[in-house]
Amino acid sequence: MTYTHTAYLEDGSIAATLADLARAHRILELEGHGDMSMGHLSYRDPFGRGLWLKRGNLALSEVEQDDFILIDFDGAVLEGTGLRHLEWPLHAEIMKARPDVNFVGHSHAHFSTVLGASEEPLKPYNNHGVWFAYEGVPRFTQTSHIITTVPLGVAAAQHIGAAQALLLANHGIAFVGSTVAEVTLTGIFLEKAARFQVDLRASGFAPIEPDPEETKEKFDRIYPAKAQHNFWTYFNRRLDRVEALQGIGISQISLPPGV
Amino acid sequence: MTYTHTAYLEDGSIAATLADLARAHRILELEGHGDMSMGHLSYRDPFGRGLWLKRGNLALSEVEQDDFILIDFDGAVLEGTGLRHLEWPLHAEIMKARPDVNFVGHSHAHFSTVLGASEEPLKPYNNHGVWFAYEGVPRFTQTSHIITTVPLGVAAAQHIGAAQALLLANHGIAFVGSTVAEVTLTGIFLEKAARFQVDLRASGFAPIEPDPEETKEKFDRIYPAKAQHNFWTYFNRRLDRVEALQGIGISQISLPPGV
Amino acid sequence: MTYTHTAYLEDGSIAATLADLARAHRILELEGHGDMSMGHLSYRDPFGRGLWLKRGNLALSEVEQDDFILIDFDGAVLEGTGLRHLEWPLHAEIMKARPDVNFVGHSHAHFSTVLGASEEPLKPYNNHGVWFAYEGVPRFTQTSHIITTVPLGVAAAQHIGAAQALLLANHGIAFVGSTVAEVTLTGIFLEKAARFQVDLRASGFAPIEPDPEETKEKFDRIYPAKAQHNFWTYFNRRLDRVEALQGIGISQISLPPGV
Amino acid sequence: MTYTHTAYLEDGSIAATLADLARAHRILELEGHGDMSMGHLSYRDPFGRGLWLKRGNLALSEVEQDDFILIDFDGAVLEGTGLRHLEWPLHAEIMKARPDVNFVGHSHAHFSTVLGASEEPLKPYNNHGVWFAYEGVPRFTQTSHIITTVPLGVAAAQHIGAAQALLLANHGIAFVGSTVAEVTLTGIFLEKAARFQVDLRASGFAPIEPDPEETKEKFDRIYPAKAQHNFWTYFNRRLDRVEALQGIGISQISLPPGV
Repeated sequence: MTYTHTAYLEDGSIAATLADLARAHRILELEGHGDMSMGHLSYRDPFGRGLWLKRGNLALSEVEQDDFILIDFDGAVLEGTGLRHLEWPLHAEIMKARPDVNFVGHSHAHFSTVLGASEEPLKPYNNHGVWFAYEGVPRFTQTSHIITTVPLGVAAAQHIGAAQALLLANHGIAFVGSTVAEVTLTGIFLEKAARFQVDLRASGFAPIEPDPEETKEKFDRIYPAKAQHNFWTYFNRRLDRVEALQGIGISQISLPPGV
Repeated sequence: MTYTHTAYLEDGSIAATLADLARAHRILELEGHGDMSMGHLSYRDPFGRGLWLKRGNLALSEVEQDDFILIDFDGAVLEGTGLRHLEWPLHAEIMKARPDVNFVGHSHAHFSTVLGASEEPLKPYNNHGVWFAYEGVPRFTQTSHIITTVPLGVAAAQHIGAAQALLLANHGIAFVGSTVAEVTLTGIFLEKAARFQVDLRASGFAPIEPDPEETKEKFDRIYPAKAQHNFWTYFNRRLDRVEALQGIGISQISLPPGV
Repeated sequence: MTYTHTAYLEDGSIAATLADLARAHRILELEGHGDMSMGHLSYRDPFGRGLWLKRGNLALSEVEQDDFILIDFDGAVLEGTGLRHLEWPLHAEIMKARPDVNFVGHSHAHFSTVLGASEEPLKPYNNHGVWFAYEGVPRFTQTSHIITTVPLGVAAAQHIGAAQALLLANHGIAFVGSTVAEVTLTGIFLEKAARFQVDLRASGFAPIEPDPEETKEKFDRIYPAKAQHNFWTYFNRRLDRVEALQGIGISQISLPPGV
Repeated sequence: MTYTHTAYLEDGSIAATLADLARAHRILELEGHGDMSMGHLSYRDPFGRGLWLKRGNLALSEVEQDDFILIDFDGAVLEGTGLRHLEWPLHAEIMKARPDVNFVGHSHAHFSTVLGASEEPLKPYNNHGVWFAYEGVPRFTQTSHIITTVPLGVAAAQHIGAAQALLLANHGIAFVGSTVAEVTLTGIFLEKAARFQVDLRASGFAPIEPDPEETKEKFDRIYPAKAQHNFWTYFNRRLDRVEALQGIGISQISLPPGV
């Protein structure tokens, strides 16, 4: 499929948005977010009926345009067929608490989950970490359980506050955005920043801690809307090329190096 | 081959089970369990004659439906052609000690073997480690030798106790299940959990230790039979796609990163 | 495209040089320098008009011969179409300060950026680090901001001094050369040497520090012009084979190992 | 090319041996030994004229049957065309000192070189390290220079003593064997064992040190001639499949994971 960028503000077509959101799932698999058939993103229904959620028993790499169901904010399935993910309250409650958020993501991205399983705050050691300059990334430690009840969803939503992402200790991450591009980049940058921090700290080198005010300024300079669009289209071009080579539905499998 | 899930309870066909078990070997290679031509799984013969064991001199990635021999519990070959693995006592003795176990696996999966070569207990730092919430993963330190004698097999079987898996210090791992899906997932989750723990501890971050009772509850919630079936079918879909691209018999080789 | 080595001294054709420089971008992506659509190299215009710079919104892996614009040393675009990278001052000011430099590179290569985000000096622990035997690799810590203004470019140029490369703390790297081969090898060796040092120090092993004078002698012995040409043609042969398999424009995507 | 195993004792054909040795180079690239166009193996000429050495300016992945020259023990080229590697004394002097050795290898395999750049002795923490149970792997620290003179070659040959491999501090490794299978497995196992030790020590876990006598017994049990043959044919089957997919001459390039 040739990628054409959808202008979400003008486009009332849910189908077009879900096609982009399906691509976002497949991009996130390439960026390290896959964990078997787990991981899911959602889209706030523009008619206020609830949210569109990827259906269950599919890996991120397998999600296509049709693979969404519409649920209301109490979890009742209104449209579509397929399993409703157990963790629908995570999506529903974050959307209820955050009117600015149109897309919610959840995955067990490896390095983000490693960071999340510790007391370590995410730091802006490199450009990817700068994405989180304003709000940082809080950590939800109330439980290691998956977020399958409304009270847990409410607690997670409270905990994410105004941030772009939330570490779910010993479990995974949640991440949000007002557009598909934004939620996808948030998930991608969190995993890149977490990997950077793990490698930096594992090296034993003495880290350089950037100034917090300079970091916020840096966010303003390097991540304006046009830069986000630039990155989003890059990930889509790459997805098209990878899928032209190997089709949809497999993550690039890499075993440990030859040794 | 299009994957169709075999219902093991109703299906008396050994051939169908061995086709699934062959696929399990190939899935485990993709999940990091390969070590040249070593590694093997076995299946308790439903007629009580002994166990079906993958024949020797084949890598996990090369195992197909015909690649099994039937041996009795004393190691005598009853059916099939090909080499009997030296470590047949590991399989035979675990099956004798564990009537609940129908499948035994053995590999030198990298991160599991790294963990096993230390004093470190496996912890449920993430969802994968939760698989072992009830029994943990004991460590066999009596010897670093491969398990080629009945006394060593008996010792290993005693040491695994009621657990799903056993670390063989400075050697590898053994893992068990009542179904092909279960033994395969056990091997996969042990390697994922070990890698997670190695990365978390190497980072130097202060880990968060989940509560053991909560972890058992979490196992009950995230790993019911239908979830296991869900993951098993995911690994099979992915195996089919990978093999459609590159055939049977090579692990995805990844060298160290471009640097 | 079949690679034929361009003799830069005799060849007045800018197009041929830019074809090689485009290949250098694509080689650097394979060597770990990619970061979405960021990263760029430049070429000092042989007619003294300024410099040719890769245009924006393209990944290193996507750069082809036509993907350059000509800017003067004040950043005015003289030829070509496409976005001018915000960090053009980094290129312009280094070229102004360094008459020996005909090519400037900038990337966020992972391990180099990890090293750069610390106080750790790059050491010649292996052959790749020996590339920097004479001048080492200084670190620019004045700011973590991207180099988008002339004063920042001047500061970076002062800071690189006579060295082949510069660590930009919490950001990335700059690297230079008098030929395409030299700038490309500088970027490649910095990333390899940084990865080596990260792995060595992360292991906790007590490192062996080679003698600085011996290291300079070693540079003279292992990196004469013909060796550099040898390596440059190797990277080009490999680029041709990779692109014959998968075309231009995708970095080899590797997810974390099967686990 | 369909692999057929050559019986080296009976086969007087140098060409057949060099075809196998060329394959050994290509297998070693897949196993992490590649470093641009460096790395080389040699074969003691059965007519006592000297040794066959891979010619220069080729990567390990590119070596085919014709890519060898015959040199005498003083480095004079007797047959073949192409560059003589600068480090021919490393091969010549080891062969002179070691009448049991028919094949010598040299590479900059990553994890072996990391280990070699430290004071850390290689330990038999897993099966791969057991390959070195009897003699261990000494470390040459006299210089970090490449071995381009007869005195340096003599020193390296003295330093390897009766061992299978030698760490060349801050440089790379040398490894030997009486057959192609043996030299190739020695190189492969050293890199695997080094990687294992780096990961184990980087984790911070308290390692379990196997008993040295038990380790020698383990070598006798797990590495008899037929097991070596088994592994050698495995690596050849895999080479054939990889080359059927992608041809000769490119290492599998893996960038750092998606993050």
